Amino acid sequence: MKPELAAVEALVFDTFGTVVDWRSSVIAEGQSWGNAKGLQIDWAKFADRWRLGYAPAMNKVRKGEIPWTKLDDLHRMILDDLLREFKIEGLTEEEKVSWSHVWRRLKPWPDSVAGLTRLKKKFTIAPLSNGNIALMASLAKFGGLPWDAILGSELVRHYKPDREVYVSAYELLDLKPQEVMMCAAHAGDLRAASGNGLRTGFIHRPNEFGLPGALGAAGVADHANSGDFDIVSESIIDLAQQMGA
Amino acid sequence: MKPELAAVEALVFDTFGTVVDWRSSVIAEGQSWGNAKGLQIDWAKFADRWRLGYAPAMNKVRKGEIPWTKLDDLHRMILDDLLREFKIEGLTEEEKVSWSHVWRRLKPWPDSVAGLTRLKKKFTIAPLSNGNIALMASLAKFGGLPWDAILGSELVRHYKPDREVYVSAYELLDLKPQEVMMCAAHAGDLRAASGNGLRTGFIHRPNEFGLPGALGAAGVADHANSGDFDIVSESIIDLAQQMGA
Repeated sequence: MKPELAAVEALVFDTFGTVVDWRSSVIAEGQSWGNAKGLQIDWAKFADRWRLGYAPAMNKVRKGEIPWTKLDDLHRMILDDLLREFKIEGLTEEEKVSWSHVWRRLKPWPDSVAGLTRLKKKFTIAPLSNGNIALMASLAKFGGLPWDAILGSELVRHYKPDREVYVSAYELLDLKPQEVMMCAAHAGDLRAASGNGLRTGFIHRPNEFGLPGALGAAGVADHANSGDFDIVSESIIDLAQQMGA
Repeated sequence: MKPELAAVEALVFDTFGTVVDWRSSVIAEGQSWGNAKGLQIDWAKFADRWRLGYAPAMNKVRKGEIPWTKLDDLHRMILDDLLREFKIEGLTEEEKVSWSHVWRRLKPWPDSVAGLTRLKKKFTIAPLSNGNIALMASLAKFGGLPWDAILGSELVRHYKPDREVYVSAYELLDLKPQEVMMCAAHAGDLRAASGNGLRTGFIHRPNEFGLPGALGAAGVADHANSGDFDIVSESIIDLAQQMGA
């Protein structure tokens, strides 16, 4: 381990794409629900369109076009548009709530629980996500993610990459910036964390937007070379290994 | 279980006195440190005096006499007074920080981890304490408390029994007030929770302020009769049992 990483006491994680596989989870739930309802929907397209609505919705909050709105509610706003676009009609309010909460029921990547469990023995671990607390707590319950605490955007009413979110991570944990490592599959998130003094751990998630090589409709998985970040890893287990946990 | 308790989805816990035994932990650490330093101090009195400083310090924040100050820092302010009172001199800054962080190293009551582990299978569990996040996360790490999330005063910059703290519990968990049960060994905390619509679970901690029958220098353990709160229990295991967990 690099000597400057010996000071790290806490690892905070991006969650959607980094810890959980949102795409295949949304597709699987769509297929199961669609079959039961007799609907013919391209659920991969549905999942990708939903994800594509995420950044613009957060940007509206960031630019002050709409007041602070938690991610559960942004998911619902996007869902309402999607239902129109995909011509899915006749859902009860209860069904709409359940659908917007599909983001509370996302499967962890196969290495996530084992990797986090190892890291937890040596470090404080917490999500630092744009997801609100209820969403993150449900996701942890659903997937067995062994967080020590839940941090993130709702606590400061700012969305990443706003600096307030990164600053809150070390302030709420009573640590110095360089004692906290931001871990994510997304280079932009890590660059923003680094710009605020945090250490960075890249986790490669080649399948986040579908099989590698396929044209990612909602994005393309980031790659990183050794040296781009403090740690460059292939999984959370690999990250744990590299951090001596 | 009473039918109205079937809606409960989350249990939030007072921590000092309810989940952890602050008094014997502070005394034990004092005795060990005092022996090494060759100091003759009445550590029980020291612990009780420290606890006695807690409510007035928080009241200064509540009344606006001082700006928001997290509990770790209030502990330090009280410690500085105590060191003068007990004529303990010559501590390095590092030792003072370590001493004010003794509140991060408090032993859970013998039933706490087992009781919480049972409850966690059926409910979302979180501390709703006046302790700040770093303090609560350290305490959980130290004692193996299996929280799903860490809630409490720091997130709303108010101390219990201010209503903002109780309201934050159900708002952050995206629940209705009656879907959250406040659990505490202190009747005042539970009455405030109930006044804000939460369910209440009393946990009897007869030894919080020392052995029962002894004149509690920092307070007297609360008792409750069946019917005073939604649940009246003798331990967190008993509470879990009564909640069907």
